[in-house]
Amino acid sequence: MSSDVNITRLDAFTYRERLAAQPQPPILIPVGAIEQHGPHMPLGVDMLLSTRMAELAAERIGALVGPTVTTGYKSQQRSGGGNHLIGSFGFDAATVIGICQTLVRELTRHGARRIVFVNGHYENYQFIYEGVDLALREIGDQDAPSVMILSYWDFVTEEVIAQLYPDGFPGWDVEHGGVMETSLMLEYFPEQVAMDRVMDLPPADLPLYDLLPVDPSLTPSSGCLSSGLAASADKGRILAESIVSGIAESITGRFGM
Amino acid sequence: MSSDVNITRLDAFTYRERLAAQPQPPILIPVGAIEQHGPHMPLGVDMLLSTRMAELAAERIGALVGPTVTTGYKSQQRSGGGNHLIGSFGFDAATVIGICQTLVRELTRHGARRIVFVNGHYENYQFIYEGVDLALREIGDQDAPSVMILSYWDFVTEEVIAQLYPDGFPGWDVEHGGVMETSLMLEYFPEQVAMDRVMDLPPADLPLYDLLPVDPSLTPSSGCLSSGLAASADKGRILAESIVSGIAESITGRFGM
Amino acid sequence: MSSDVNITRLDAFTYRERLAAQPQPPILIPVGAIEQHGPHMPLGVDMLLSTRMAELAAERIGALVGPTVTTGYKSQQRSGGGNHLIGSFGFDAATVIGICQTLVRELTRHGARRIVFVNGHYENYQFIYEGVDLALREIGDQDAPSVMILSYWDFVTEEVIAQLYPDGFPGWDVEHGGVMETSLMLEYFPEQVAMDRVMDLPPADLPLYDLLPVDPSLTPSSGCLSSGLAASADKGRILAESIVSGIAESITGRFGM
Amino acid sequence: MSSDVNITRLDAFTYRERLAAQPQPPILIPVGAIEQHGPHMPLGVDMLLSTRMAELAAERIGALVGPTVTTGYKSQQRSGGGNHLIGSFGFDAATVIGICQTLVRELTRHGARRIVFVNGHYENYQFIYEGVDLALREIGDQDAPSVMILSYWDFVTEEVIAQLYPDGFPGWDVEHGGVMETSLMLEYFPEQVAMDRVMDLPPADLPLYDLLPVDPSLTPSSGCLSSGLAASADKGRILAESIVSGIAESITGRFGM
Amino acid sequence: MSSDVNITRLDAFTYRERLAAQPQPPILIPVGAIEQHGPHMPLGVDMLLSTRMAELAAERIGALVGPTVTTGYKSQQRSGGGNHLIGSFGFDAATVIGICQTLVRELTRHGARRIVFVNGHYENYQFIYEGVDLALREIGDQDAPSVMILSYWDFVTEEVIAQLYPDGFPGWDVEHGGVMETSLMLEYFPEQVAMDRVMDLPPADLPLYDLLPVDPSLTPSSGCLSSGLAASADKGRILAESIVSGIAESITGRFGM
Amino acid sequence: MSSDVNITRLDAFTYRERLAAQPQPPILIPVGAIEQHGPHMPLGVDMLLSTRMAELAAERIGALVGPTVTTGYKSQQRSGGGNHLIGSFGFDAATVIGICQTLVRELTRHGARRIVFVNGHYENYQFIYEGVDLALREIGDQDAPSVMILSYWDFVTEEVIAQLYPDGFPGWDVEHGGVMETSLMLEYFPEQVAMDRVMDLPPADLPLYDLLPVDPSLTPSSGCLSSGLAASADKGRILAESIVSGIAESITGRFGM
Repeated sequence: MSSDVNITRLDAFTYRERLAAQPQPPILIPVGAIEQHGPHMPLGVDMLLSTRMAELAAERIGALVGPTVTTGYKSQQRSGGGNHLIGSFGFDAATVIGICQTLVRELTRHGARRIVFVNGHYENYQFIYEGVDLALREIGDQDAPSVMILSYWDFVTEEVIAQLYPDGFPGWDVEHGGVMETSLMLEYFPEQVAMDRVMDLPPADLPLYDLLPVDPSLTPSSGCLSSGLAASADKGRILAESIVSGIAESITGRFGM
Repeated sequence: MSSDVNITRLDAFTYRERLAAQPQPPILIPVGAIEQHGPHMPLGVDMLLSTRMAELAAERIGALVGPTVTTGYKSQQRSGGGNHLIGSFGFDAATVIGICQTLVRELTRHGARRIVFVNGHYENYQFIYEGVDLALREIGDQDAPSVMILSYWDFVTEEVIAQLYPDGFPGWDVEHGGVMETSLMLEYFPEQVAMDRVMDLPPADLPLYDLLPVDPSLTPSSGCLSSGLAASADKGRILAESIVSGIAESITGRFGM
Repeated sequence: MSSDVNITRLDAFTYRERLAAQPQPPILIPVGAIEQHGPHMPLGVDMLLSTRMAELAAERIGALVGPTVTTGYKSQQRSGGGNHLIGSFGFDAATVIGICQTLVRELTRHGARRIVFVNGHYENYQFIYEGVDLALREIGDQDAPSVMILSYWDFVTEEVIAQLYPDGFPGWDVEHGGVMETSLMLEYFPEQVAMDRVMDLPPADLPLYDLLPVDPSLTPSSGCLSSGLAASADKGRILAESIVSGIAESITGRFGM
Repeated sequence: MSSDVNITRLDAFTYRERLAAQPQPPILIPVGAIEQHGPHMPLGVDMLLSTRMAELAAERIGALVGPTVTTGYKSQQRSGGGNHLIGSFGFDAATVIGICQTLVRELTRHGARRIVFVNGHYENYQFIYEGVDLALREIGDQDAPSVMILSYWDFVTEEVIAQLYPDGFPGWDVEHGGVMETSLMLEYFPEQVAMDRVMDLPPADLPLYDLLPVDPSLTPSSGCLSSGLAASADKGRILAESIVSGIAESITGRFGM
Repeated sequence: MSSDVNITRLDAFTYRERLAAQPQPPILIPVGAIEQHGPHMPLGVDMLLSTRMAELAAERIGALVGPTVTTGYKSQQRSGGGNHLIGSFGFDAATVIGICQTLVRELTRHGARRIVFVNGHYENYQFIYEGVDLALREIGDQDAPSVMILSYWDFVTEEVIAQLYPDGFPGWDVEHGGVMETSLMLEYFPEQVAMDRVMDLPPADLPLYDLLPVDPSLTPSSGCLSSGLAASADKGRILAESIVSGIAESITGRFGM
Repeated sequence: MSSDVNITRLDAFTYRERLAAQPQPPILIPVGAIEQHGPHMPLGVDMLLSTRMAELAAERIGALVGPTVTTGYKSQQRSGGGNHLIGSFGFDAATVIGICQTLVRELTRHGARRIVFVNGHYENYQFIYEGVDLALREIGDQDAPSVMILSYWDFVTEEVIAQLYPDGFPGWDVEHGGVMETSLMLEYFPEQVAMDRVMDLPPADLPLYDLLPVDPSLTPSSGCLSSGLAASADKGRILAESIVSGIAESITGRFGM
């Protein structure tokens, strides 16, 4: 049990020993969502991917992984298809904020000095930020831990993008259910992907604004904003390596490990 | 993929098909916590057990299982050792309430008419209740689904208690990390239990009141309120059967399935 | 005026003198509700009983009694008949929490170092706990008072239970409007009890779960969960003595008075 | 019991009968505070007076009186001496608002169509208003009851003021602990007034603004903003008659009773 | 740019220099509303007037003016005609409180030690007070700035009232859209007043209580509570001088400038 | 007065007439912030620009402009330099959300059917979205207006970017205080720009993550994320035309005007 990096699988005594190590390991908090990802991938994609990549990065640098936040913010049409779709569970800002705030508060109580939120659901970012900010205000300058907040796709390098999207990169927002997510799932959780169910539709043609209530006709019938047909485990491996090594280096660089 | 009862492992299209079945399957929401459970069990015990038992009950009656709530209320000394212990993550009432409220709201938007919260962390109960109540107030009488709320240990029968605790039953609250939880873990997740690490201490001698700030000396040094030494997979099987069949019968009885 | 233990009947100068005594008297905060208690008892039972027993315990040990919290959490079907009944006033969790938090904050500002919440409404307990916890977090470790939280029926001894319920004790939850509450009212507020209006119905046969919206048919038509017919002032006296002395001893024991 | 106007002293069955009468009786909700009122009056003045006057008005017009709100907003220096004083319990806006909102929601659920908040603590008014407004927004136009909000001193007529304050009326705000409140207490609760403890100080000389943190030197050492020495039960009777009849007439006038 | 007193028109470097001056200038925060003011004045009256008078007072005493709060509390019938009227934007208590709390928090972070809220919308006062109080609680005694809260009309002297209202002063509450506001607008923003559109109706005859839902017939059809016909720029000048000098003197008097 | 598009400068009667027109004009709500923008531009840049561009777009298409939201979310280091800087006023998520929610609620009460939020502060977007979503949930499907949410810089076309940034476009986030904002200010508010105070520093070299507490050394000493030296009124005109026409066309296209 003791070599596991995910603290939810550690017992409390082992967790305390790990935290007492010098230098203290950073704790990575994956943040996902339960959200429709088309007919070919499960609702849990965002929590699965953020957790797995956080664990892999943690293994490389001797870090730990804390509880995964599964309660993602509402799916927005221009990045997740929209929260009108059945299968997406959209949590209010206040809830996402409150959970992240609590995690910082509790980890600080445990003695953690370095925390990293690893976001895997586009819509979450600002609410994670607010949760962290509120926690630090509450904790006060003197006792504040150092907290990094990142979204995993930002660590895909330009080179990888050029290699994987030879016809031009459509942007991370319309990647919902597309080549990147599907490839990463094929790499890590192939048994949860049904490539024969991919709906090969043109990418969503979305306006420069959000509209509420949503105009459902703007989301492709697949619920995906671009087609995952070109996905492959090979691409997933390239993406994953770019992401995991990028996150790992950012953490060690920042924290001087 | 399609025979899975846990919707986080289903794709959205399959989930929609399942919801469209007649009669519509109830959706069970496991509610756990991330909490210390002594030196012999992982922090995730409550979410693991509530999820597994919900899945088993769902399989028996053709129900579905929704996202597990992992953000449990603060560990209280008389039922979980206290939230001063490193390893426990205590969420505020507002957060637990907000999550449960959202789940009812979102499942209702999905068209679900029968929801069952399966609680696996003693401290959560009243906050689940409040979340459900607020959701139903917001939804209005006309569209309200029917929601059951239960804690799994309430379904252990008197007969099973008499059989497993021949020397007298100490009550569910001091069961934290004790024979029941350890036995259930041995039955379902034996690889996550280290029986050789059980600290065989006398049961906690707790007062008739809560004290805040906690007096740490009142919690045994194991963090468990009673010893898990007498636990076994056999006992786990007996307990599990009592619980799973009790929950299954309650649901079918209530919902006329 | 000056020998009164209830500070709402003291003037501020006397209150300040009392607080300045050495050792400082603990302050007991009764917590009740406004809730239907059948046709034979008034809506105010829970606030009346918690206040009176807090005052009697305070008199024995030289403590004070603070403002009674009258805004109880929603009546739940398995402990109070359900909040669908006309006559019950169910406050949201946030309100009950906020009031208890404020009382701890304000008493701490007054200089109080020992506070005891004396709960008289089953449903309140977790929300009192949360209010106290939030107050202590806000106040900080250095200035935190010591706070006890208890429900009065937990102090009825096994001996008294055996004596008063010779045919077996049904549990405190179904005691709503039953022998215990009615007997205590007969002891303390006989003019507010109409024994000729008791509806002698069988105890409620409630399931192992809560159901929302409530199934009204599960609550007896009296609104009481068991019959109060066997109540008497004599039983009330025995119960009261057990409770008041138990609370008094717990406080002096804990606070070394 | 049945002729009592205060529903906290009625049983639920009687309460329901009363509510079923035609025309339905309005329900008056007294709103007070727990606040220092100098050395000669108890902390409970505001809840005592608002409750008593509401009951007297209710008796005249066949109305009912609901639960007294005891959790008043923070004492402000220019109307209550300031919330820095020991003995005052200042509740946050959110709490006062939440309680009033709940009372409107619950009374509406009970079937009440006319509600009157009778305020007895200067600082409360805007928060009662907000609570009512939020409740009505939530309830919706179709089901909204009619709600009056008033402060009792506004019903003292010009004639009575001229009679009782022959040397000029200082304004209701500096009346805190002064002639009006003391006289009303002498009329209704003489046993809770100690006229020999009145501190006969000049009225507070307060600026045209509030200052926070409070400058304690601006509040007279009595905690009262003017002297209660000229108070008498006779004056109390005159004031009370003016107030109670004014409130009663306003209610019957508005509701066409 | 640098002689401007309004910091929203200063660059950050100049703002920092100003704050570094000794003695540090107080910062005045105007608080207004967007609210109907009859057919002859714009919705922005309250924010325009509070901002202008704060700026004029600031110029006299070397103070600064911070961002204007435009999100006023709901218009109430007895002081603003009622929030049922189209054109008024009524913000909830929580929002007004939150904004004022933030301003105190942020100004304190900037190093400001003296803050003055200059209210121009009757309904706001208690919510500004609460926002300030919550901010100071959060900041703690040690770092708390000194905060004044005032409403501008309280600084009109008795002499000015006698001069401008020779037939008797109706009270500030019914001044909504009347002689005072119209005269001040004529003095400061004559191009935004259309005197030919004044509806010369008798003053509102309002009861001694608020009624919710509002009885619209109680508000004059102009939306003003008294007629602005007698308004003039001359009166505006007299009022303005009384107010601006009164505010300026109160600030310098309090802060010993 | 009547040709003005900004309703805060309209009287209520004119506002009501405008709303009654067929087809009803959309209402544009500018959303800005009070935030440092270096030594050469005032704190009010974001509210000034969003308001002006909303007004210009409204003039072209016969729309109205509602109250400007000035209470922007906290400045973040990677888009605004960070909220540790003196001069920035960072409002909590809850406040920004509450204000936007209220505006939708109140405009809907006024009868508005089409609302457009025109964001001018990068950090605000998700909180505007949440405010709108909460308002629509509260209002209900039947009465929901149609709401567009946009950020103005998204309407700068690829052609304009290529023309104005011949050496490559650094991205909107690091545009804080740079060429775009400075040019737009020069076009609209030249008297509030001091080009001689521009600090010509290299663009900020920011990591792929946020760090809290902020590492102040990552923000250039100007507080701007890139240099505004290359700004000009000509560029401002080109940008403005691209933005204003883009917004105008999006609105007319969406609403079929």
